[in-house]
Amino acid sequence: MTITITAFEKSPDGGKGLARDTRVRWALEEAGLAYQVRLVSFDAMKQAAHLALHPFGQIPTYQEGDLVLFETGAIVLHIATHHAGLLPADDNARARAIAWMFAALNTVEPPELEREAAIFLEGGKPWRAELLSLIEDRIAVRLGQLSAHLGNADWLDGAFSAGDLMMASVLLRIRSSGLLEKYPNLAAYLARGEARPAYRRAFEAQFAVNAGKHL
Amino acid sequence: MTITITAFEKSPDGGKGLARDTRVRWALEEAGLAYQVRLVSFDAMKQAAHLALHPFGQIPTYQEGDLVLFETGAIVLHIATHHAGLLPADDNARARAIAWMFAALNTVEPPELEREAAIFLEGGKPWRAELLSLIEDRIAVRLGQLSAHLGNADWLDGAFSAGDLMMASVLLRIRSSGLLEKYPNLAAYLARGEARPAYRRAFEAQFAVNAGKHL
Repeated sequence: MTITITAFEKSPDGGKGLARDTRVRWALEEAGLAYQVRLVSFDAMKQAAHLALHPFGQIPTYQEGDLVLFETGAIVLHIATHHAGLLPADDNARARAIAWMFAALNTVEPPELEREAAIFLEGGKPWRAELLSLIEDRIAVRLGQLSAHLGNADWLDGAFSAGDLMMASVLLRIRSSGLLEKYPNLAAYLARGEARPAYRRAFEAQFAVNAGKHL
Repeated sequence: MTITITAFEKSPDGGKGLARDTRVRWALEEAGLAYQVRLVSFDAMKQAAHLALHPFGQIPTYQEGDLVLFETGAIVLHIATHHAGLLPADDNARARAIAWMFAALNTVEPPELEREAAIFLEGGKPWRAELLSLIEDRIAVRLGQLSAHLGNADWLDGAFSAGDLMMASVLLRIRSSGLLEKYPNLAAYLARGEARPAYRRAFEAQFAVNAGKHL
């Protein structure tokens, strides 16, 4: 069955891997699955046709036959559950890999989202710098804990998994802040993720959209 | 195999359902599973013994034989995957229920966490009210979209699922803000969740801890 995902017609980051479709593209590439991309404008994302696919008016969505999914975590987990390459076979190891997916999305990413909200929504406020500093302290607590857990390991729990895919994607989101630089093992972990051929293909496919090369 | 979870020795909310162990207790009760609770102090949560179970030093954790899990979403999903009562049998419906779990944790809860951070961490700042108002506007956008999707339905996607368990738990987190009152269908949805016998048992077991009745 054909897999179709949605992505930004014009990504706010210029197609540098920060839009959430990168996470889904990466998972599809790890699993060796072909997919089609339908680009949507910011206007279209707020219309009924798109809201029927994604109640919160965002991208990506995922369609495969009768199945319509939203939420990147759910889409990546669906791919990982149905295809080899993203989750270990052992039942307990599989549960732990899924735990790292949730940790990325519900423990590490929320203060990052808060930081972006502070940058973009409270941009004109005189107290922006003070707020950003408080938020970045909270992000640093999470990064310190993650760094302590990772230690010298290549991946969070043995072999590369969907948990690493999601955590690396979430770390990518704050690389431009400079906060990662204090944790060389996390910076190296992210670099290992980005060096994977599947990530490279995902990145290049997303970048091509912005460069006007998407067919 | 015995299931053991951890919970706050002294919950910040006095045991009124807001600590994340409630979500796990609720899932265990829906699945009809017995469990033991080990209480941990805030000091103990930062020590190596607890960090070995939970790298981010939080509760709950979940132990069952050799399996050690953290992250509420992952624990609830693990329970839901291995026992009846929390996920539909149909594969597509199951994927959609899991999507609602992720939507609760990665789309609806993050601005709520931001609100709590603003209340507790920036309490002494003169710009707190202004920041809270901006955050509450963002929460209202999510609640409005969720309300539009739910409409007159009882649950988010057909029968009650782990997706509803998680979404109701996330809505519970902001009830005290008064923000839910603008969306009567969401308030009724939360009330339906709270009326479930499994939720009542989970709530009472957690409340008993704070009342000093935990054995």
